[in-house]
Amino acid sequence: MPIDATEFDEYLQFANELADAAAGAILPHFRAGSGAENKSAHGFDPVTAADRGAERVMRALIRARYPHHCILGEEEGKEESQCGRGEGLTWVLDPIDGTRAFLLGLPLWGTLIALNDGTRPVLGLMNQPFTRERFVGTAHCAWNGGHVLHTRPCAQLADAHVMCTSPDIFDPIQRAAFDAVAGRARLLRYGGDCYAYCMLASGLVDAVIEAGLQPWDVQALVPIIEGAGGVITAWDGGDVQHGGTVLACGDRRLHAQLMDELRAQPRG
Amino acid sequence: MPIDATEFDEYLQFANELADAAAGAILPHFRAGSGAENKSAHGFDPVTAADRGAERVMRALIRARYPHHCILGEEEGKEESQCGRGEGLTWVLDPIDGTRAFLLGLPLWGTLIALNDGTRPVLGLMNQPFTRERFVGTAHCAWNGGHVLHTRPCAQLADAHVMCTSPDIFDPIQRAAFDAVAGRARLLRYGGDCYAYCMLASGLVDAVIEAGLQPWDVQALVPIIEGAGGVITAWDGGDVQHGGTVLACGDRRLHAQLMDELRAQPRG
Repeated sequence: MPIDATEFDEYLQFANELADAAAGAILPHFRAGSGAENKSAHGFDPVTAADRGAERVMRALIRARYPHHCILGEEEGKEESQCGRGEGLTWVLDPIDGTRAFLLGLPLWGTLIALNDGTRPVLGLMNQPFTRERFVGTAHCAWNGGHVLHTRPCAQLADAHVMCTSPDIFDPIQRAAFDAVAGRARLLRYGGDCYAYCMLASGLVDAVIEAGLQPWDVQALVPIIEGAGGVITAWDGGDVQHGGTVLACGDRRLHAQLMDELRAQPRG
Repeated sequence: MPIDATEFDEYLQFANELADAAAGAILPHFRAGSGAENKSAHGFDPVTAADRGAERVMRALIRARYPHHCILGEEEGKEESQCGRGEGLTWVLDPIDGTRAFLLGLPLWGTLIALNDGTRPVLGLMNQPFTRERFVGTAHCAWNGGHVLHTRPCAQLADAHVMCTSPDIFDPIQRAAFDAVAGRARLLRYGGDCYAYCMLASGLVDAVIEAGLQPWDVQALVPIIEGAGGVITAWDGGDVQHGGTVLACGDRRLHAQLMDELRAQPRG
């Protein structure tokens, strides 16, 4: 059932309320304990108190306001006790995308909130409360505060600014394909998480190439990128909403070229 | 000739004025032209109008206020027409450290300002005007706004958060040494430029390992790291102020371990 405009505005407003509540749970932990905490007895675990606290507060708000909606979140998985009764709407939550950036004090993490209508994410929001930036996208447009976002034209890899969170996210075959492509970009930059996709929507980055993503890592970014005029799919052009490989481009021509190149690599 | 406390306070105030002036010249260009400019006819050049404009305004302020001081800056090299007359002080300027981050819209670049007394940088400042952060260091302390900075204890590489702007900054021998060390860190993150060093001073990062730096890339960071309790040298432990390889650690024990490890790699 399509969402009508009044309903959609209400959900958009509610997504903003979720982002505010998550920020309130996260910000007190950002850079807190610096100089003291580096003592995990069981090795490295990037899941912080902030991550869990923010998901808890968002889930509580959704349950109270829309008890018939589903929730899919990183920390607590899928919650469908009462969901799906006629509406088929799911809130997809990643309280802190970029937990490693968060741990290191870098303001490149973000809270990701998507609303999926049962077929695709129709509303996406990325909130970076330290820099006070909020990127929002729908099927038709995307904006950051008062600025409407537009991807920029870039038809050729040789002219492209490419980003990727880390070369370590790829398996060996993916890594070979990525390296062959990234080595011919005009500029390659590692580090970025969700922030890289928002810079693509802002017309500052031409391609983001990643792999190993989860549904909650990517769903909020789909409307932001598509609303700004970009394209985001799996490496083979397939639907990206369930995670896996991701190829996001600001220009459809670059996307076509990179799909061909990523597919052309030997597959072992 | 040592700088007395009154003089030092005056220079510190002046460094803040330089940072304000640079920010005024840079910020209007940050993310400006997004969606339009990707058309360099002569390949990729990260030097922007912002970089040049900011260095120009800082040089003009120094010439007017301290005509006998030297200036060393990225854009216009060393200016010593009247310098060295009795004082031997040099302002070392990098208007935008992290031009690639700047181009991509990432708020990890910074304006670096150091005052060198002829033997070493005695005052360092890193200004990030988009996030409104200003890191300042002296021989005795370092701070960011109202927060005093302290590096954190971390004696072992296996516990360390390591940062490096890009694996591409190393020559092949350096790359082998870096990879051997970084592969055993608890967390490795690429991307960061001057911001990574300030997170080290803030007790959130344990080591920054880089190479190929210029004097203006590093001098402002020396007092920030040393003032926060950290150590910053070349990979062989030598004086880092002239650039080259850089090994910065929050904990002296980690620094000793990493010097040994970086030296232990075969040198071709």
